[in-house]
Amino acid sequence: MSSSALKIGLLGLGTVGGGTIAVLSRNADVIARRAGRPIEVVAASARDITKPRAFDLSGIALVEDPIELVGRPDVDVVVELIGGTTPAKDLVLAALENGKHVVTANKALIALHGNEIFEAAQRTQTMVGFEAAVAGGIPVIKAAREALSGNRIEWIAGIINGTCNFILSAMSEPGREFEPVLAEAQALGYAEADPSFDIDGIDAAHKLTILAAIAFGIPLQFESVFVEGIRHISRADVEYAARLGYRIKHLAMARQVADGIELRVHPTLIPTSQLLANVDGVMNAIMINGDAAGPTLYYGAGAGAEPTASAVVADLVDVARAFGSDSENRVPPLAFQADRLTDLPIVSMEALETAYYLRLHVLNQAGVLADVTRVLGAGGISIEAILQQESDPGAAIVPIIILVHPVPEHAMNQALVEIAALSQVHEPIVKIRMESLT
Amino acid sequence: MSSSALKIGLLGLGTVGGGTIAVLSRNADVIARRAGRPIEVVAASARDITKPRAFDLSGIALVEDPIELVGRPDVDVVVELIGGTTPAKDLVLAALENGKHVVTANKALIALHGNEIFEAAQRTQTMVGFEAAVAGGIPVIKAAREALSGNRIEWIAGIINGTCNFILSAMSEPGREFEPVLAEAQALGYAEADPSFDIDGIDAAHKLTILAAIAFGIPLQFESVFVEGIRHISRADVEYAARLGYRIKHLAMARQVADGIELRVHPTLIPTSQLLANVDGVMNAIMINGDAAGPTLYYGAGAGAEPTASAVVADLVDVARAFGSDSENRVPPLAFQADRLTDLPIVSMEALETAYYLRLHVLNQAGVLADVTRVLGAGGISIEAILQQESDPGAAIVPIIILVHPVPEHAMNQALVEIAALSQVHEPIVKIRMESLT
Repeated sequence: MSSSALKIGLLGLGTVGGGTIAVLSRNADVIARRAGRPIEVVAASARDITKPRAFDLSGIALVEDPIELVGRPDVDVVVELIGGTTPAKDLVLAALENGKHVVTANKALIALHGNEIFEAAQRTQTMVGFEAAVAGGIPVIKAAREALSGNRIEWIAGIINGTCNFILSAMSEPGREFEPVLAEAQALGYAEADPSFDIDGIDAAHKLTILAAIAFGIPLQFESVFVEGIRHISRADVEYAARLGYRIKHLAMARQVADGIELRVHPTLIPTSQLLANVDGVMNAIMINGDAAGPTLYYGAGAGAEPTASAVVADLVDVARAFGSDSENRVPPLAFQADRLTDLPIVSMEALETAYYLRLHVLNQAGVLADVTRVLGAGGISIEAILQQESDPGAAIVPIIILVHPVPEHAMNQALVEIAALSQVHEPIVKIRMESLT
Repeated sequence: MSSSALKIGLLGLGTVGGGTIAVLSRNADVIARRAGRPIEVVAASARDITKPRAFDLSGIALVEDPIELVGRPDVDVVVELIGGTTPAKDLVLAALENGKHVVTANKALIALHGNEIFEAAQRTQTMVGFEAAVAGGIPVIKAAREALSGNRIEWIAGIINGTCNFILSAMSEPGREFEPVLAEAQALGYAEADPSFDIDGIDAAHKLTILAAIAFGIPLQFESVFVEGIRHISRADVEYAARLGYRIKHLAMARQVADGIELRVHPTLIPTSQLLANVDGVMNAIMINGDAAGPTLYYGAGAGAEPTASAVVADLVDVARAFGSDSENRVPPLAFQADRLTDLPIVSMEALETAYYLRLHVLNQAGVLADVTRVLGAGGISIEAILQQESDPGAAIVPIIILVHPVPEHAMNQALVEIAALSQVHEPIVKIRMESLT
């Protein structure tokens, strides 16, 4: 394994810049084991470089002039996290001309100037990564660009603006109207003081521009996207839609039809039976319909410091792997370099700690439940819920369902042995594990 | 762009083999535009090579001896789709020793012999692709291996056996017990005549073995997975779980805990509020929790000829891109090679055909609805549903909600102009587009 580090120059020390520094530092070991070499931030530049930051900048050269940063000989990759198109575009083009690879989270930059930037990258034999520009931590660029490459993509439908989705989700709760929900989103940091970029659909249109180019092999063309925001959606419409079996979502759609490509961003009723209709809060999800794969869906956090940093770092690992000195440009089959596997122990099921669903069959008489709960309590097992089926009072045997909070499996099994030994409890006892997935 | 084709030798002409031939042929143009060169099946081998097939084998050399196929000088990549470990393992190892890249859909082979196969690939400087081995058309290998490379992965939870998920989904419908549902699954081709490999959890354990190695950097170790099937799940448990707010799913879980890694496959109660709980029928989904990205979820078809072929072809495109003659081993930023974009027209919104939700405010008097529906009918617009809010009989104005079937937007707009002109209809008229996403 090559040991020479991939050296990063960071443009921008805001939320995502801080997240990127934190992730690269906290996960340095697993990242190096996957990438084949360490990835290190060696220099950074920001508008006010002397401003105190909440994250650790030790070991990072702070550079006042961003043009100097993108030309530094010790920088292999420039990570652009300043946003907007000025001066981001000039800095990215300068970095590419200097032979640096570029990773960016800037959707406006790619949607509006991507054609020019990719031409420069092709000419200068450099890589441009922009996974973070669309849907934050969800790897939808990689999915559309690499994983579905055997498909004729028929359509893409995405919930790709967390602000709109937060507002529309909240409006489905009783009594919530657009204006107060927007104010709440602003207070929570999910909407800007001037929210128009998000709620009028511009942000989603930037992302759709990028997704459609990748899906259909067409040039980036933001100006062709039909854009409608969510200001005109009222609580009454959200409610009527629900009564008819639909949710209103702010959907970005690109679809190939006989005459060409549809490119549109607007509020849309979706049947509640669809997974996309159940994507709530600030979460994002994108559904892609391919002629071979059929529908696939990608869900996750569409924004935030670390989800976005996750995508930035994935692009950096792609660069490290592609330009590694001895990697033959390959992704290791099992993600980690073959000489960097670890033989962690596999935990026995006895040691597993989880919640359980239990179904008992007991004599239909007083005191049985007290006996059962006494055994559980003695074993340190606490009960979350009990369901006693209403049954024929003449029934000899009745079922009892008990949900218990997480407990080591050996304690659960021991308690079940004792419960099975109670004369009022009949076999079989059903035990099914539970997961909250949170 | 290089024009020399990537040449494929196919082992196995069953369902997935046929799907792979069909997808490579039908989508040859978009695949070449993405891969930088054509991908062609030049030779194939199968147990009975003379058997008539339902797909077109013209131009493909049929080879009786599979050992001959994996050594043919005109083959760049061997695609192994025969399944099982004998003779698949020997053939794959022979292909690698001959300097061929290998793409396989064989989960048992990778779970049981992957360590040996990857060693051979590293020694022979070849690539082994196995996206199709886990969850068919869902690119979860690529997600875990490349897209989440900046994360310390905390856990993976997957519905990765379509047979089990079909059975458990069907058992949530009224009156369906395990045995008849299994029989239905067998009749539909979702379960084998001997279903034990699927319903006892072995298939899911093979896939979990692979996912866990990728997520945690541990060796493949199928023998360490705790496996429990679904034979003991009764309709009563499915019903009780539903009443308590849960769905029972056959879940494969790998989780890093303080003492090591949990590796387990078993029926599991999941809260219905989780997207995973709403993955029904033969569909698969995998949730991965990373410390930076947070939870991400990947959903799609986990089996079937073309979804599996989609994953096989994606691996082939990865090989074509990595070993292309003039590609600098790069994935094109917009998926398609820069000189192979097409400038398809963007369709105007007037030409868009979609369904609509309409909210009208009308005078609370007889005959209004007749007037409105007459205008819609005259415009060729058919109604899917009408919702008339029960209102105070004394109200002067009442809302009417109308859902209409797909219609060109210009026809919808024209009808709305006429409806707005009706004296009994008041402004504003709300119009929201609908998508069924099917």
